[in-house]
Amino acid sequence: MRNLSMMTDLYELTMMNGYSALGTSGKTAVFDVFFRQQGQISYAVAAGLQQAIEYINNLHFDEEDIEYLRREAGFGEKFLGELRTFRFTGDIFAVTEGTIVFPDEPIMIVRAPLSQAQLIEPALLNIINHQTLIATKASRVKKSAGKASVAEFGLRRAQGPDAGIYGARASVIGGCSGTSNVLSGKMFGIPIKGTMAHSWIMSFDSELEAFRKFAEIYPDNALLLVDTYDTLRSGVPNAIKVFDELKARGKKPVGIRLDSGDLAYLSKKARRMLDDAGHTDAIIFASCDLDEYVISALNEQGAKIDAYGVGTRLITSENMPSLGGVYKLAELTENGVSVPKIKISDTHEKITNPGFKTLYRVYDGDGKAFADLIALAGEKFDTSAPLTLTHPTMRWKSTTLDRYAMRKLLVPVFLGGKQVYTSPGLMQSAEYARAEKASFWDEYMRNVSPEIYKVDLSDGLYELKSRLIEEHAGVKA
Amino acid sequence: MRNLSMMTDLYELTMMNGYSALGTSGKTAVFDVFFRQQGQISYAVAAGLQQAIEYINNLHFDEEDIEYLRREAGFGEKFLGELRTFRFTGDIFAVTEGTIVFPDEPIMIVRAPLSQAQLIEPALLNIINHQTLIATKASRVKKSAGKASVAEFGLRRAQGPDAGIYGARASVIGGCSGTSNVLSGKMFGIPIKGTMAHSWIMSFDSELEAFRKFAEIYPDNALLLVDTYDTLRSGVPNAIKVFDELKARGKKPVGIRLDSGDLAYLSKKARRMLDDAGHTDAIIFASCDLDEYVISALNEQGAKIDAYGVGTRLITSENMPSLGGVYKLAELTENGVSVPKIKISDTHEKITNPGFKTLYRVYDGDGKAFADLIALAGEKFDTSAPLTLTHPTMRWKSTTLDRYAMRKLLVPVFLGGKQVYTSPGLMQSAEYARAEKASFWDEYMRNVSPEIYKVDLSDGLYELKSRLIEEHAGVKA
Repeated sequence: MRNLSMMTDLYELTMMNGYSALGTSGKTAVFDVFFRQQGQISYAVAAGLQQAIEYINNLHFDEEDIEYLRREAGFGEKFLGELRTFRFTGDIFAVTEGTIVFPDEPIMIVRAPLSQAQLIEPALLNIINHQTLIATKASRVKKSAGKASVAEFGLRRAQGPDAGIYGARASVIGGCSGTSNVLSGKMFGIPIKGTMAHSWIMSFDSELEAFRKFAEIYPDNALLLVDTYDTLRSGVPNAIKVFDELKARGKKPVGIRLDSGDLAYLSKKARRMLDDAGHTDAIIFASCDLDEYVISALNEQGAKIDAYGVGTRLITSENMPSLGGVYKLAELTENGVSVPKIKISDTHEKITNPGFKTLYRVYDGDGKAFADLIALAGEKFDTSAPLTLTHPTMRWKSTTLDRYAMRKLLVPVFLGGKQVYTSPGLMQSAEYARAEKASFWDEYMRNVSPEIYKVDLSDGLYELKSRLIEEHAGVKA
Repeated sequence: MRNLSMMTDLYELTMMNGYSALGTSGKTAVFDVFFRQQGQISYAVAAGLQQAIEYINNLHFDEEDIEYLRREAGFGEKFLGELRTFRFTGDIFAVTEGTIVFPDEPIMIVRAPLSQAQLIEPALLNIINHQTLIATKASRVKKSAGKASVAEFGLRRAQGPDAGIYGARASVIGGCSGTSNVLSGKMFGIPIKGTMAHSWIMSFDSELEAFRKFAEIYPDNALLLVDTYDTLRSGVPNAIKVFDELKARGKKPVGIRLDSGDLAYLSKKARRMLDDAGHTDAIIFASCDLDEYVISALNEQGAKIDAYGVGTRLITSENMPSLGGVYKLAELTENGVSVPKIKISDTHEKITNPGFKTLYRVYDGDGKAFADLIALAGEKFDTSAPLTLTHPTMRWKSTTLDRYAMRKLLVPVFLGGKQVYTSPGLMQSAEYARAEKASFWDEYMRNVSPEIYKVDLSDGLYELKSRLIEEHAGVKA
């Protein structure tokens, strides 16, 4: 396993060295990971926790790392000595992979010695931001595809090897049922997909010969790429000839793949041609610059597509290629005294939520998700009494539920540096994500102009936040 | 080193198994890597060759890979046996890192046994597409920044660890002078940058104390982050107090960092405040959602910024997060007979250039780049005679040069599977990229509406291409 311990921003080490010099490295800090409302995103599918766990478990500095930091950053021997024996001894709480999450709520909380908590910020954000971004994009694409399956095909356009490898993983959590990426298939047990490229066709003297040879070698896997020369005049007729031959041998043709041109027009024409030739079971697989918007548009026009391969725009989340997850200090404890921390901003939405918190999902009487509730970890809720939920800033907006259920979304992942949570297999996380989505009214899951899901603040948290804002206003006035 | 040999698309292996069954794996194939005109990109800065070389040198399949492919892909023992002893035995020609390249020209050519050439397609494209994308974005950002230095700050928003690690590397080829990413610094010898986050400020009882402690520990590195509470009313005045104290101790303050708010307004106000306090040497470093367009706009408004930290929009190339580099079959040789190959498309620009080719850069009498010329590898040019350059499709458009120089841009990297090219150090590639850019008239390097640089086809290549197009038209008619 690669050692990513040095994959941090220099300022984390600069601060750590400072805390070491001041003797404050061991203060207990609480940091929240959350993202803000961004682009068209209304919800996100949490992903990447397993790689975050592996990163934490593997944290250590080699002698050559120490030597590099001595030479290039000029740190002194006291701090370098601390790095030499560095390991993570704190707590991490997180939502499990596949959980549906919303802007502004903590999806991971790190409670650890200040110095440790600083070091891990960039790597945790990198891993969680990336996989959550791609899982969310995959979920949106799958939503548009409906019953049609979606395979992830983006390796060659991904932003480096990891983006391809872990992007495929995240895509499956989001709703893809397979990937073209063989390494991801092997690493994570994802079904792998793929038959032929244009170069296969071009390497034979004719398209018909290329199809025929493929069907001879793979009689049960004949998904033929029909757009190398001319889809409707050459590709589909040649595919039909080969399908006829396969049927005569008692084999079942799989179908055709369209990879260019107008997919609505071509799929309708090709469907008719296949049906007229008696190949009603042959599927039409489409790829080529697809995303959730193109797929919805194709559906509107009655395209006859049974399965999709989605590449570039999925693996890069093209129209929003980063999730802006942040890592904000919420509390600092020294000698048993906890001080809640807040980051003030002129933009009210950018003021952080102070304190050591927890996150509940509240379900209504129908068992559907109704709102999320961010609360202080110590707050008690009597679930036998009605629950009043109040808007995070407009406190006059509130709802009281008589029948409801509350579920804690953050689970302990590390306690005292020891891993206490084991990720389920990837396909299980994918299944869980599907169940999660089903627990929301469809209005929240819409790709365009969705209803905004409520994320509320408890009374305790609201009062703490208000008090700290007032204190800061007092200081400045 | 990670073994990325399995990082390929399944269809490559499916085709390889097919070629193995047909006995055609050993035909010699020529594939071109090139990208098409895309978005606002007029030129690109080639990057990633070093990682491509490492990938090729490391190609091999482990027993567990073989076992996986037997189980999941159902390949037979003959092909699996071939994988067991697989190594790359072909030739690779490529432009060196930092070379300025243009749409439609081959930036890498693979000439290898068909099966081998197929396997490596996705990984080569992944690596070259990613690093070339980010180097190009960095070049655009640096162009806008002018004399101000640009540091890469995007690790936490990068699409996975590699996107952060190799994105930082590519950024330096493109024009960044440093990175926050310590691992990239260590791996590639990039200067590392970074002082403090908001959490440093928040971990103290007051901003002034936070600045003071930092300046005590780092008297020669006091770049103070001034926007945690209120930039102009708190941050800058506190920074000035600490700078006064530093000066009194005979130390030179570095400056301030702005990370939110309106950077034009704040930088002008802060510059005035610093100057009025006698800290005319203190620099203003700005970060916060920057890219080439924002930086140009800040310059227009007279922002007083000496250095930039650019994160998300650089490390993801936000407004164009993939380079659409492709890998197209150009020639196939069997028993000594070479057959040029062409991919036909209804869109004329998408028709590929057939044959085994080479790429020249033609310089005018002033030594400035005048045009690139794609030619067949066998074509001879008498550089003592005038050179006529002709438009790739509109052949009546031509120019004849009397004084000129020609330079071959593609260098042999592998010959017969043996590495014959060694990459210079990263900082040398960055220096070469700077010289490359200086060899072009500035009109071609403009970020907005640049003049389009000429990429022409030689007569030999044009004739071959025309003949193949006619043959295909004949087949279809």
